[in-house]
Amino acid sequence: MVEALIFDVFGTVVDWRTGIAREATAVFRHRGIDLDPYEFADVWRGEYDPAMARIRNGDRGYVALDILHRENLDTVLTRFGLDDLFDTVARDAFTHAWEKLPPWPDSVAGLDRLKSQYMIAPCSNGSIALMTRLAKFGGLNWDAILGADIARDYKPRPAVYLASAAALSLAPDRVMMVAAHNGDLAAAREAGLGTAFLPRPAEHGPGQTQDLTAESDWDVVAADLADLATKLGA
Amino acid sequence: MVEALIFDVFGTVVDWRTGIAREATAVFRHRGIDLDPYEFADVWRGEYDPAMARIRNGDRGYVALDILHRENLDTVLTRFGLDDLFDTVARDAFTHAWEKLPPWPDSVAGLDRLKSQYMIAPCSNGSIALMTRLAKFGGLNWDAILGADIARDYKPRPAVYLASAAALSLAPDRVMMVAAHNGDLAAAREAGLGTAFLPRPAEHGPGQTQDLTAESDWDVVAADLADLATKLGA
Repeated sequence: MVEALIFDVFGTVVDWRTGIAREATAVFRHRGIDLDPYEFADVWRGEYDPAMARIRNGDRGYVALDILHRENLDTVLTRFGLDDLFDTVARDAFTHAWEKLPPWPDSVAGLDRLKSQYMIAPCSNGSIALMTRLAKFGGLNWDAILGADIARDYKPRPAVYLASAAALSLAPDRVMMVAAHNGDLAAAREAGLGTAFLPRPAEHGPGQTQDLTAESDWDVVAADLADLATKLGA
Repeated sequence: MVEALIFDVFGTVVDWRTGIAREATAVFRHRGIDLDPYEFADVWRGEYDPAMARIRNGDRGYVALDILHRENLDTVLTRFGLDDLFDTVARDAFTHAWEKLPPWPDSVAGLDRLKSQYMIAPCSNGSIALMTRLAKFGGLNWDAILGADIARDYKPRPAVYLASAAALSLAPDRVMMVAAHNGDLAAAREAGLGTAFLPRPAEHGPGQTQDLTAESDWDVVAADLADLATKLGA
């Protein structure tokens, strides 16, 4: 009955922490900055949800995540006392790190298998521009790019799941949300979508405590995207 | 300087006339209808532009092309005196013919070559739902699905070209419109995009008189998508 699978991307399909830390390592070395690049990645990512919250709450109109990432970089550079070392051009360039995140080892092949049986698309808070570049970087062969830009709102607001299903002319129950985050799936289920969980225990590094296991009776629970493909007959 | 190529699809990438006539042949045979399937395809397609014109003019709010195709089928069945032979389910099913149009022989390989060097996406009046299914049917490996649904307006209105470029975070002059229709390219150029023309002299069948040659000094003129890939270094 499910015709399309839509995916959380940051954490579920790609390893943002390694990708941002890798870029930060190069950027810091170039400037002689002695700072843990993983800590920097975590702090930059830490600004993600508060920045979106203002838009979800209606305190700010919709702007694409690329702009939030760029603004959040300003905040984080100030916090680390690095303001003088980055001009506007350097900050813009650093923000493109979010377009160069490595897929998890099972992602590309798993998506290709799933694509043979289903329509597959990101349902991410990342913009079409960001998701398109990320897909080209990592070889993610999506059928379409859905998510926040389509809805002009941010997950976990129901509009994002519903607009993504509607863009494919599918009722919500014909679409399954795939995520490594229980909260994302709870919102998708509330909106009427099917749900598939797979853990990404290294997303937040060695000390991760959240989303290590399925916390509800999701429709499918898989070990990774290869296992999901097997479980969905792809 | 061009980073993305966006494509007209009906006529430029896929052969809608053959696809619709093929489906009509099967549908008519099943019902014992003696009617030229190519004539039927032409008449159905003939309702396309007037239906969009009402939306472009503001007489009607945006609705996806799938809905216009379905409404136009009603109009055309009435015109041919076939109303009694098609119930609602049959009409809905027939409308899905627009999701099963064969690519021109050079399209799939040409797009794959272009994709290796550029972001590629449809900038069609077809919806995301329609374009996604058409791509799966024909093996068109787009990076994203842009066009009318993104802009909630129809070509040749400038909003469609501009929204497609903006969705990729690109200035219009970083995007090239590829089409077999001079009018589409004239509108894209007016919006600030680059332009590439390739003729599809069989789009409208053996009697085609329009769009047989480039009617302006488009940035690139190619014989087909393979030649376009060569001319763009892909």
